[in-house]
This record gives sequence, C-alpha cells and structure tokens, in this order.
Amino acid sequence: MNAGAIKIVGTGLIGTSLGLALARHGIVAQLSDQSKANLRLAIEYGAGTEEKSVPELVVVCVPPDLTVETVVRELEDNPGAIVTDVASVKSEIQQKVQAQSAHHALYIGSHPMAGREKGGPGSARADLFFARPWVITPSENTDHAGITRLKDLALLIGALPIVMSAEEHDRAVALVSHLPQLVASTLAARLIEGDEQQLNLTGQGLRDTARIASSDPELWVQILSQNSAAVAPLISKLRKDIEKLEKALSDIDSPGALAELHSLLDRGSRGIAKIPGKHGGKYVNYQQLTVVIDDTPGALAALLTFIGNVGVNIEDLKLEHSPGAQIGLVELQVSPQSAELLTRQLLDNGWRMV
Amino acid sequence: MNAGAIKIVGTGLIGTSLGLALARHGIVAQLSDQSKANLRLAIEYGAGTEEKSVPELVVVCVPPDLTVETVVRELEDNPGAIVTDVASVKSEIQQKVQAQSAHHALYIGSHPMAGREKGGPGSARADLFFARPWVITPSENTDHAGITRLKDLALLIGALPIVMSAEEHDRAVALVSHLPQLVASTLAARLIEGDEQQLNLTGQGLRDTARIASSDPELWVQILSQNSAAVAPLISKLRKDIEKLEKALSDIDSPGALAELHSLLDRGSRGIAKIPGKHGGKYVNYQQLTVVIDDTPGALAALLTFIGNVGVNIEDLKLEHSPGAQIGLVELQVSPQSAELLTRQLLDNGWRMV
Repeated sequence: MNAGAIKIVGTGLIGTSLGLALARHGIVAQLSDQSKANLRLAIEYGAGTEEKSVPELVVVCVPPDLTVETVVRELEDNPGAIVTDVASVKSEIQQKVQAQSAHHALYIGSHPMAGREKGGPGSARADLFFARPWVITPSENTDHAGITRLKDLALLIGALPIVMSAEEHDRAVALVSHLPQLVASTLAARLIEGDEQQLNLTGQGLRDTARIASSDPELWVQILSQNSAAVAPLISKLRKDIEKLEKALSDIDSPGALAELHSLLDRGSRGIAKIPGKHGGKYVNYQQLTVVIDDTPGALAALLTFIGNVGVNIEDLKLEHSPGAQIGLVELQVSPQSAELLTRQLLDNGWRMV
Repeated sequence: MNAGAIKIVGTGLIGTSLGLALARHGIVAQLSDQSKANLRLAIEYGAGTEEKSVPELVVVCVPPDLTVETVVRELEDNPGAIVTDVASVKSEIQQKVQAQSAHHALYIGSHPMAGREKGGPGSARADLFFARPWVITPSENTDHAGITRLKDLALLIGALPIVMSAEEHDRAVALVSHLPQLVASTLAARLIEGDEQQLNLTGQGLRDTARIASSDPELWVQILSQNSAAVAPLISKLRKDIEKLEKALSDIDSPGALAELHSLLDRGSRGIAKIPGKHGGKYVNYQQLTVVIDDTPGALAALLTFIGNVGVNIEDLKLEHSPGAQIGLVELQVSPQSAELLTRQLLDNGWRMV
C-alpha cells in the first residue's frame, strides 16, 4: 500500500488505534475528525497526518448513529475508493447505504472485534486488533477487489479476517455477544436485593457468570437496539426455557419436574461443549491444579518460573481470592498428560496445593 | 482434640479430604463407609482408621439423599456426641432431623463451600477446605458448645467459619450459586443451535458467562430440588426481567423500549458492584493491562518475573487465546496507582502490549 492511500474518518479509540497500527508498518494514514481536539491528539500520538491526498481505502470509525451518513458522503467524495466502517452491527447500515448511495458496490462493512473499556484517542493502542477477529461483511454487489483489500489490511495489522454476510454476522454476535450480555445483566440485577452476608458467600462461579454486567449501559442500548431483530428470537427462546424451570421449581414434586431440570442442565452442558478451545481447536477438558501462594508481589512469578522450568505449558490460569484470606489460590489448567508430572514436582518442592 | 474423637461417616471426596486435613494436625479420625472399597482406599491414603472409639463429633459426609437417615442413626448410636453433615442445602435436612430424632439439639448442619469437578476418595485433597467458607447453620435449639466445636474444626483445617440459620444459608446459596448455575445453563443451551462460524466469534465474555454450565447435571438436579423453595422466587423475578427485555427487543421502536433496555443494563451494572472484592473488601475497579506473549512454556513466567521485579502486585490475571492465533494475551488487573508505572516499564523493556 502507498503512504496516504488510506483515510481514517473519526479519531476515537478505533480510528486512532488503526492509524497507530498502520504507522508501525510505515503507512501514514490521512486522518479527519469533526473534533479538532481529537484530531490533534491523534496526530501528536503518531496515528497519521491531516494532509489531504486521494485515498484508495476509507475506514469510517465514527459512532454508530453517524456511520451511515459518513459512509455515504465518503463514497460520494472519493470516487473509486473502497469505503468500510467498523460498527458492531452490520445489516441496518448496509441496507441504508445501499438505499442512499449510487456507489454502494464500493462499500464493505467490517467489524474488528476489539475494544477497550475506555474510549477516545488517548486510549488508543497500536496492537488493539492483534490476534482478534476482523469480520468483513460484503453484500452480493460488493466489488471483489475490495474484499481482498480489506483482508490485506486486517492481516497487515495482525488481525484475523473472517468473511461472512452482514446478516450472518449480526446473528452470530446476537448469539455469542449480545445474548450473554443480557443474561449477565439480568443475573447481576438480582444481586441488588442481596444482602452483605449472602454476597460474602460469592464464589468464582457467580463472579464469572456476571462479570460482563459491568459494561457501559449507554453503549449497549445502542448495540442492542441496532440488532434487536437478531436478538429478540434468541431471548424469546431463552424465556421459554426459564419458564419451564420456573414451573418445575415452583412445584418440584409434580410429575416431570426433575426431568425438566435435568433436560435444561444437560442441554447447557452440551451447548458449552460447542465453544471452540484455544487456537480454534475443539474444546479440551484440561485438568485443573490449584496452588496456594502468598498474596505478595513476585509470589505468582516464582510459581510460574518454577512451572516453566519443569517445562509444562499452562493452558489457562485464574487467580482466586476468598473474602478474609490473605492468600491467593492459583487455578492452573494443564493438559491431562502434564498434570501428574507437574503435581509431583510442585509437591516435592514444597508448593502447597489444594 | 483427642485422637479418635472425630468420626467421619462416608469416605467420598469430602469425607476423605476432611480425614486427610485432620491427619495433618495429628488427629486420626474414625472412618466408616458402606462401601468397603472406598473405606480401604481412604485408610490407605492416610485419612484415618477403621478402629472404633467413642466420638465427640460425628461428621456425616454421605450423598444428600442419605443424609437425614444417617444423621438420625448417628445421634442415636453416639449419645452426647455432636453430629453435623456437609450437604449443600440445609433447611430440609434440619426440619427432618428435628422431626425424626429426640436428640436433635446435638445436630448442627454445616456446608463447607469446597469441592472438585471429580468425586470419590481418589480425588481427595488435604487442603480442599483451605481458605474456603465453612457455613455453620445452628437451629434455635442447638447446643452452643457444639457451635464452638464446629468453628474450631473449621479453623483447624484452614477454613473460614460463618454462622447463619439454615434458611439464611439456603436463600444465600440460591442467589449466589443456584441462580447463576441455572442462568449459565440456560444461556449455554442456546449454543446447541449455533453453527461453527458463529461460535468461532466467541470471546471471553461468552466463555466466562457460560463456564459453569459444564457442571454435572445429575448433581445439580439433587441440589436444585432440595432448594426449590428458595430458588423459585428468584427465577420468577428473573423471568419477569427477561419478559421485559423480550417485549422491548420485539418492538424496539415502541415508546419506552430503549429506556427498558437501559434500566436492565443499569441495574445489572449496580448489582455486580455489590460483589465483594478480594479479601472481603468492596469491589475495586482495577485497571486492566494486556500483554502479548508467545504460547510456550516459560513465557508467562518470564512476564511475571519481570512484573515481580518491578514490585507491582497483580490483583487478577487471565489468559486469553483467539482461535487461530499461536500467541496468548495476558490480561492483568492492577491497582490504578500501579498501572502507569507498570505500563512504562513493560513497554521500555520490549514487552508487547495490546
């Protein structure tokens, strides 16, 4: 790609991060933003330049509610250039661009599945997209060279390009992102009525299940409202399962009540087995080892240095702390083949296991 | 405590672990089990002895559906001894023991909140109860010396004794354990209809929210059926929130639909803030730093050794892997005061941050 061939519209978290990522590969993006302060900050960070050139690719990184009008204007202003956006729901934007622009064949939606809990150019990171999926959502009319161009962009900055239709994307994120958000929030809302004594019994299960409920409500209202068509059928099916549970639990001695509970728990167990494991492989049942460490700087490092010296690869790791205890429990997931060796080595060398 | 003064009935995971924990403190428990094979294995592991003596404390560690009859028999057989059990739902057992035994003042329910994904004496660990809550649920009639005795037992093996009524306990676990289980299973059940392309977009959010859905359905049918009275009202309230969401999402342009979504998301955000943080403190918003490492043995250790040398304490840590990527992302939670120092040190020393 030539320097200056890429234009980034909107220098918030995503736009500025993209500019920084391109800069690492010697590409100076052309930046624009309605906010002069944001634009100046992004330029000072090294995300690109204000100097105008003729772009071959325009990446629209403005808020969701401004995306359509910005895409349409950029298609008009830059004849022949590919225009993409980065909003997290794709169908509605694609339909409106097709309706409002004669040049819509040059528009390709995309969704880099990366973000941070904070927005703005000051939170930008050159590696924001590294190892994250970058979904590309062409329509039937989309120029094929454009798809290749976007794939190249994603690969250049270390992202993983995945091509699917806008509808497929929206149904996918409804299932793997929007439904979990609603479920976690609904569960966490129940905690408002919980008292301190009850919440002191909280273990890792509730912590994990409810974690994403701490997300920003304003942002999620926007996302959910743009994807309500895909989310509504899922929440409807979920509601039917909840009703069955409620009926069974309200009259636990009635015929079929226990079978209903078992059916739901069993389906959940089979559903989670469908989530791919690390590196895209099938879900693997790693073996868990739990080690006790002091809650001091360096204690975890000492443990992991020891494990590294044994030569065992840690597949997953979680720290757990109990209320009132000044120690930490380190939950390690290792392959079943490594578990016995590591356990013996740990115990023989004075580590405390639970 | 005198050697032999404690009798453990049932040498599965909990009973054998308790015996091993006591053995570390020089206490040889008297073990019994209807299964001769389990009993022999527990004794060979060093969890106690088969030799009979007069117990001062009997801990009943049999499956939930055998707990009541075993407690009643042990109260009858051991006049003056305190009898406790370890089942995870308490009210029903307490009521039945009170109805069926003249010696019920010497019965005190308890619930060590510890376990593993595997059962049986072969999975037992001496540190199973270490740093975990051990809930003690006396009734109004319970002998007070017995409460002290049980607290001492919990403290001796490193558990954290918490006293509350059986009803309080059952309502608490309904909220912090049983409801999350049902929510995670219901969410995971939706994944059965998801295709591979959709599930490949799974991120950490869905993984965490659905994780506990992989629990054993048979065990959970027992637990939920014994605590249906406390769980049913919670699932009923949750169902009402789900119905509101369904209504709003099904007609997103109707008046009040967005406000309904916002209300639920906001309540979830406030609910999760009530979960106590580590060491029983209030939930703290740690700052997250994400570091890229190679997926090789020792890579994580090298990172944590470096962080230990900087002198920063890691409050929480999670490994994330994207499908298709041969690298790992390490998500560190550190105090806001440490975040800037650590970020600078990491970047200055060649670590790759996202």
